[in-house]
Amino acid sequence: MSVDLLVRKIKEKGNPSVAGLDPKIDYVPQYIRDKAYAEYGKSLKGACEAIWEFNKGLIDALYDVVPAVKPQSAFYEMYGLNGEEVLNRTIKYAKEKGLYIILDVKRNDIGSTAEAYSKAYLGSVDIDGVTEKPCDVDSVTVNPYLGTDGVKPFVDDCKALDKAIFALVKTSNPSSGELQDMIAGDKHIYEHVAELVNKWNEGTTGASGYGAVGAVVGATYPEQAAVLRQIMKRSYFLVPGYGAQGGGAKGVKPCFNDDGMGAIVNSSRGIMCAYKKGDWQEEQFAEAARAEAIRMREDITGIL
Amino acid sequence: MSVDLLVRKIKEKGNPSVAGLDPKIDYVPQYIRDKAYAEYGKSLKGACEAIWEFNKGLIDALYDVVPAVKPQSAFYEMYGLNGEEVLNRTIKYAKEKGLYIILDVKRNDIGSTAEAYSKAYLGSVDIDGVTEKPCDVDSVTVNPYLGTDGVKPFVDDCKALDKAIFALVKTSNPSSGELQDMIAGDKHIYEHVAELVNKWNEGTTGASGYGAVGAVVGATYPEQAAVLRQIMKRSYFLVPGYGAQGGGAKGVKPCFNDDGMGAIVNSSRGIMCAYKKGDWQEEQFAEAARAEAIRMREDITGIL
Repeated sequence: MSVDLLVRKIKEKGNPSVAGLDPKIDYVPQYIRDKAYAEYGKSLKGACEAIWEFNKGLIDALYDVVPAVKPQSAFYEMYGLNGEEVLNRTIKYAKEKGLYIILDVKRNDIGSTAEAYSKAYLGSVDIDGVTEKPCDVDSVTVNPYLGTDGVKPFVDDCKALDKAIFALVKTSNPSSGELQDMIAGDKHIYEHVAELVNKWNEGTTGASGYGAVGAVVGATYPEQAAVLRQIMKRSYFLVPGYGAQGGGAKGVKPCFNDDGMGAIVNSSRGIMCAYKKGDWQEEQFAEAARAEAIRMREDITGIL
Repeated sequence: MSVDLLVRKIKEKGNPSVAGLDPKIDYVPQYIRDKAYAEYGKSLKGACEAIWEFNKGLIDALYDVVPAVKPQSAFYEMYGLNGEEVLNRTIKYAKEKGLYIILDVKRNDIGSTAEAYSKAYLGSVDIDGVTEKPCDVDSVTVNPYLGTDGVKPFVDDCKALDKAIFALVKTSNPSSGELQDMIAGDKHIYEHVAELVNKWNEGTTGASGYGAVGAVVGATYPEQAAVLRQIMKRSYFLVPGYGAQGGGAKGVKPCFNDDGMGAIVNSSRGIMCAYKKGDWQEEQFAEAARAEAIRMREDITGIL
């Protein structure tokens, strides 16, 4: 009922970072695309098989370096049923390699519907007495705009099944402040959301000292991150915006506690497209990704 | 680049309501479930084939009464790939029957990822020069918590492809006020979001007088709806919360303009489970749904 499994894997790897698997088709090396198109056609199926080869190569190169992967659902949904199938294949493969799975879906809805979303990804589905787990991941991201009853079903499944969620608090994008930075009473909206996260996190603290309800806090807003780190003492932070979005190691430091724990930093494009920088050949995409993941590990652990 | 198509269909049917297709397995008549289990097993596949039979029966009974259907993605995602496949089949069938499709996905993310979501449902995907449309619907719901750059990609596709979106403004659930009712400056957050909706809606107004960016406004909060109706003059309202969630025709009235346009009211459980009330037999589920959809039409048009 906590984020302990993730904390353990972060300690094992000595690496508080997560590799985002956001496979835009133009991230995939051309030779992989061409091979897949030759076999399956230049089609949704062809694109998805190329993505699968790419993801598999990345996971093979990264699984002993990073503790976790974060597939971004949008980049699979955009390829329809084939995309969903490759997402499931990717999750299964990454799990077999011992990776912790954070599925980035940012789901949100009213209570009874949020329950269905939670069952889809964290819990299980009852079919007249038969239990099925359609897409079983370790954690998902959720959007807090609907308030407590849209998040509670996820928390219930976290408690029952030892899962975790990360609620959007302060996102990494340029316009995140439009709503999140508004001041209501004496606090920013992101601080109010942080207090809701604390409420949702009650009674879920594990041996690590952290609970099941984490927070998404962008590397691009280090000042806000420092404030949020003080408010949500028992929440792990999932930190997007490192690298390609402009946040560096300095930007992520305030997301961590003094003991170097408390946050996991995501890099998607930086790792996936590492082969496009420097002297790498396309065929070395996995080697390049591994080198970048190691560089990122050193960069982040260096400031902790 | 507007919601004109929906407005036309509402006028044709004389009915400003939409049938929600949220097929929880216990909404499906037992005889349909048993038949599907006998053929496909008590499994995800079996559940999904039962849902398909149910949806098909509902669409056949409703397509000349309602202008639109609103599948709730959560109730398909919860059945994994089989569920996604039945969602696609349902959308295709409903379109063939001339229904306007509002896919309730409440998607949200940073700009580049929101673009992928928009391509998944409104736009098209480019695969090295080949264009594919994985799941082409008329409109989707979006969550505004990330601000403008998370919504703009959807608006761009609306403009290019004559689609529409509905942004969550004031949701129907009990805890919607936790964030949405907070006061920042001199206004509630839902009013600030309404002003963002106006900004996003600029330059999309169609012949109907309404633009491509609509708003989700719950029937359960009529006072707030009246305020929002004044702010978002060019936005169509998608109104959940009628019926099962407690909002009646009186609750939805403030969502409409004086000419009886400007809103479309959703009922999911009320229509889908109509056969469970009164003297209907399970086998009459479609007839019961049709009777309830007609009753709802009369109820709502009666107060306009």
